[in-house]
Amino acid sequence: MKPSKQVISGSDFITTQELEKENLELLIEKAFELKNAKDPSKYSEILKNKTLIMLFFNPSTRTRTSFEVAMTQLGGHAIFMSGNDIWLGKNSESVKDTAKVFSRYANIIAIRMFPDISKGNYGTINKIMREFAEWSEIPIINMEDDLFHPCQALTDIMTIKEKLGSLKNKKIVISWAYHPKPLPVSVPNSIVLNSTRFGLDVTLCHPKGFELQPYILKTAEQNAKDNGGSFRIVNTMEEGYKDTEIVYVKSWGALQYYGNNKEEKKLRQPYRGKWICNEEIMKRADKNSIFMHCLPVLRNVVVEDAVIDGPHSVVYDQAENRLHLQKALLSEIG
Amino acid sequence: MKPSKQVISGSDFITTQELEKENLELLIEKAFELKNAKDPSKYSEILKNKTLIMLFFNPSTRTRTSFEVAMTQLGGHAIFMSGNDIWLGKNSESVKDTAKVFSRYANIIAIRMFPDISKGNYGTINKIMREFAEWSEIPIINMEDDLFHPCQALTDIMTIKEKLGSLKNKKIVISWAYHPKPLPVSVPNSIVLNSTRFGLDVTLCHPKGFELQPYILKTAEQNAKDNGGSFRIVNTMEEGYKDTEIVYVKSWGALQYYGNNKEEKKLRQPYRGKWICNEEIMKRADKNSIFMHCLPVLRNVVVEDAVIDGPHSVVYDQAENRLHLQKALLSEIG
Amino acid sequence: MKPSKQVISGSDFITTQELEKENLELLIEKAFELKNAKDPSKYSEILKNKTLIMLFFNPSTRTRTSFEVAMTQLGGHAIFMSGNDIWLGKNSESVKDTAKVFSRYANIIAIRMFPDISKGNYGTINKIMREFAEWSEIPIINMEDDLFHPCQALTDIMTIKEKLGSLKNKKIVISWAYHPKPLPVSVPNSIVLNSTRFGLDVTLCHPKGFELQPYILKTAEQNAKDNGGSFRIVNTMEEGYKDTEIVYVKSWGALQYYGNNKEEKKLRQPYRGKWICNEEIMKRADKNSIFMHCLPVLRNVVVEDAVIDGPHSVVYDQAENRLHLQKALLSEIG
Repeated sequence: MKPSKQVISGSDFITTQELEKENLELLIEKAFELKNAKDPSKYSEILKNKTLIMLFFNPSTRTRTSFEVAMTQLGGHAIFMSGNDIWLGKNSESVKDTAKVFSRYANIIAIRMFPDISKGNYGTINKIMREFAEWSEIPIINMEDDLFHPCQALTDIMTIKEKLGSLKNKKIVISWAYHPKPLPVSVPNSIVLNSTRFGLDVTLCHPKGFELQPYILKTAEQNAKDNGGSFRIVNTMEEGYKDTEIVYVKSWGALQYYGNNKEEKKLRQPYRGKWICNEEIMKRADKNSIFMHCLPVLRNVVVEDAVIDGPHSVVYDQAENRLHLQKALLSEIG
Repeated sequence: MKPSKQVISGSDFITTQELEKENLELLIEKAFELKNAKDPSKYSEILKNKTLIMLFFNPSTRTRTSFEVAMTQLGGHAIFMSGNDIWLGKNSESVKDTAKVFSRYANIIAIRMFPDISKGNYGTINKIMREFAEWSEIPIINMEDDLFHPCQALTDIMTIKEKLGSLKNKKIVISWAYHPKPLPVSVPNSIVLNSTRFGLDVTLCHPKGFELQPYILKTAEQNAKDNGGSFRIVNTMEEGYKDTEIVYVKSWGALQYYGNNKEEKKLRQPYRGKWICNEEIMKRADKNSIFMHCLPVLRNVVVEDAVIDGPHSVVYDQAENRLHLQKALLSEIG
Repeated sequence: MKPSKQVISGSDFITTQELEKENLELLIEKAFELKNAKDPSKYSEILKNKTLIMLFFNPSTRTRTSFEVAMTQLGGHAIFMSGNDIWLGKNSESVKDTAKVFSRYANIIAIRMFPDISKGNYGTINKIMREFAEWSEIPIINMEDDLFHPCQALTDIMTIKEKLGSLKNKKIVISWAYHPKPLPVSVPNSIVLNSTRFGLDVTLCHPKGFELQPYILKTAEQNAKDNGGSFRIVNTMEEGYKDTEIVYVKSWGALQYYGNNKEEKKLRQPYRGKWICNEEIMKRADKNSIFMHCLPVLRNVVVEDAVIDGPHSVVYDQAENRLHLQKALLSEIG
């Protein structure tokens, strides 16, 4: 199914960047409508007898549960398939045949597939996602690949709006953190693209060596220009956190050492215990700042309990909003 | 549950051969009714609050999805259980206790279990299927064992009827193809039994050494006699494809070397690149012939892209019809 | 969620011992109402659009199926998650975050997690269950941990009532049996607690060395005192089975050798073929006695076919009642 720039219905949802901003705004608005509905029964049969196929190649807590609950609350059904349950693969069935056949049975396909970074090949998985979309006759939802996590990032915009009232020129720092393993860049990629798209003043903050892909940075700059916000990169937490209204913490792996864990580890190891979000650094931020993390999080390595369990943290509301945003998405895309 | 020759309701569905032909015709008719329904909501609560237990001991794309979607579209629920999820096994729980207990909870049980051919013992799994049926108090559906794949083969008859208008004396070739692994004979067994049962003129086409089980061949001959069709076996693709209206391609393993992969491989290896369905051989068939394959298929080994993606191919309609036929089956058997 | 002594709604269901007896009686009553309902459609939408998250860390036949069917029959949906599907774990996500996030999506959480006895640490898993309950904002159902199996044991009381008419001073023997592996004590713990709670005359029967935890025995004695029944321990089957109206057979591992399979095996091995329930020993029981086992059972090791398939056996009704009791629980707790 080809992405449409005009309407969300019938489109794929692979990266928000390929959808019109007004459609993204519509999704957020719809998500609030669903969250605040006085009579949820109004929506209880919207997807009656409809099926979402969820294809998971990795463990998942939030994504799987929120999608499956979303379908249930809309009266439909979500099929949970792990990659091992089906024939898909080089010596088995092609992406084309799999997508074509699923299109004959179900109403929407959602795919979660993120990289074994130790094997390199950044972007390979997004290509598989796009191959699915090429052959599928029903909409494809990206539940996180190696480039993007659009459901997470659009939900994050919703949560910021919910907490701060408006988005325009709100100051956000997207701050790298130490984690023992190199994690995908899909979340930072998507939150950088979305926050600049919605006109926030965006600071990307990481040690040297953890630069995101040039395409992402260039698009972010253009987004900022087009939408009245700003985009800058800083290399110290002190600078990044200063007066920010939103602290968004996330660890990711160094793209330059994709496929080379040994070198990557050398680069990240010195930041252990230093690039961690704690009460001390939070004092640099605005006194009413909110703390966000997409979860799962390694507590006291990425962020200290005192912060994630403290008054600034909105992480559970952020997780909850996945449900509402995805209900909006499913009801509009189906 | 014992198979009944009189009605489909309450019967098991282990092989179509054990059901009255008029009941099979009724299922196909019902499948068309469901496929062409102008108002599908008429069927949207037929199985409300009802449960199908699906027990899978192998990966599955079409079978699992089509059954789970079928239950959803009929308002019921399908439980997906992999063999690893339950206690069943020699040092754990008996088939008897498993079947008896499932009978107290669910409405229908469907089982997919096909052989590790390298271990031999052709027919062993069908015996397990029959043991389930012996103890179960609710209907058992065979989602493919080592002998039969009745849902596939009855769907195939439906698809032929849909494409060619009638079945009587339509010419079909069921043609072996090379595949690197020895695959089960359940599909050829079942399509041979079903196509002769419905009065087609059937040509089974394979290299010497890949003969199906004598019981299947004898039953096919009797079916042909009883239903006004014909049945013959040929050993060259040239002869098999000549003027045929239906090309049905499928690879399978040599029964004589069940449990002896090494010898089996010696027998099959010479046919690599030769017993493949390509545009050249398709010219031997009727110019309006349809190409069928049950999928998954190893592209460009079993069949060339030009054929499966070409004008004769009906493989995705064939896959889609699994959904409609199984909806008919579930609504009648439950 | 903290357990409440007053009402079942909104409470956790970790062990029946922590709930008021009248609430347990209400659940059994409700279970009978559901089982005998003339018009089941009355209950067919009670949990419409509601979700139960079922978290399984072990295989399961009855528990998983009966809960999933229960949700289906009440119009809701059960998510089946194996432990491998989610992030939960020491180097991944905390129990707190998992429980908090699930609380934002679903309506009830049910957890099955029983011990690898070879690793010792009796009670560790119940602590994890309680940690879930501490953080969860929705009710937690214990689907069996290393201490308790409350759904099984309360169902057993229901089955006894169904078969014998009343509970007061009915004679039950809970008899150990030989099994090649050391099994959890959750079932004997829970049935001892429940049968004494409901005023039965309870005989716990096992070879020396297989004593249950002192807390369980003390609580059972107090239960008996409080509810007009009795509780004793005997060490021979001859004494245990004498004149009993209910024979409840179950194998379990020796707590003193938890984590020490080698010593445990030495203790259990002499009882192979001796501590087995057969027709001979059943003659010691009341002539109208019922035979119970929670299943799965190793036939002809724990109990002979002649008994489990014989006239005294109520094991399939016992299994079926899991469905009705859990429907009652889900509809009251949600």
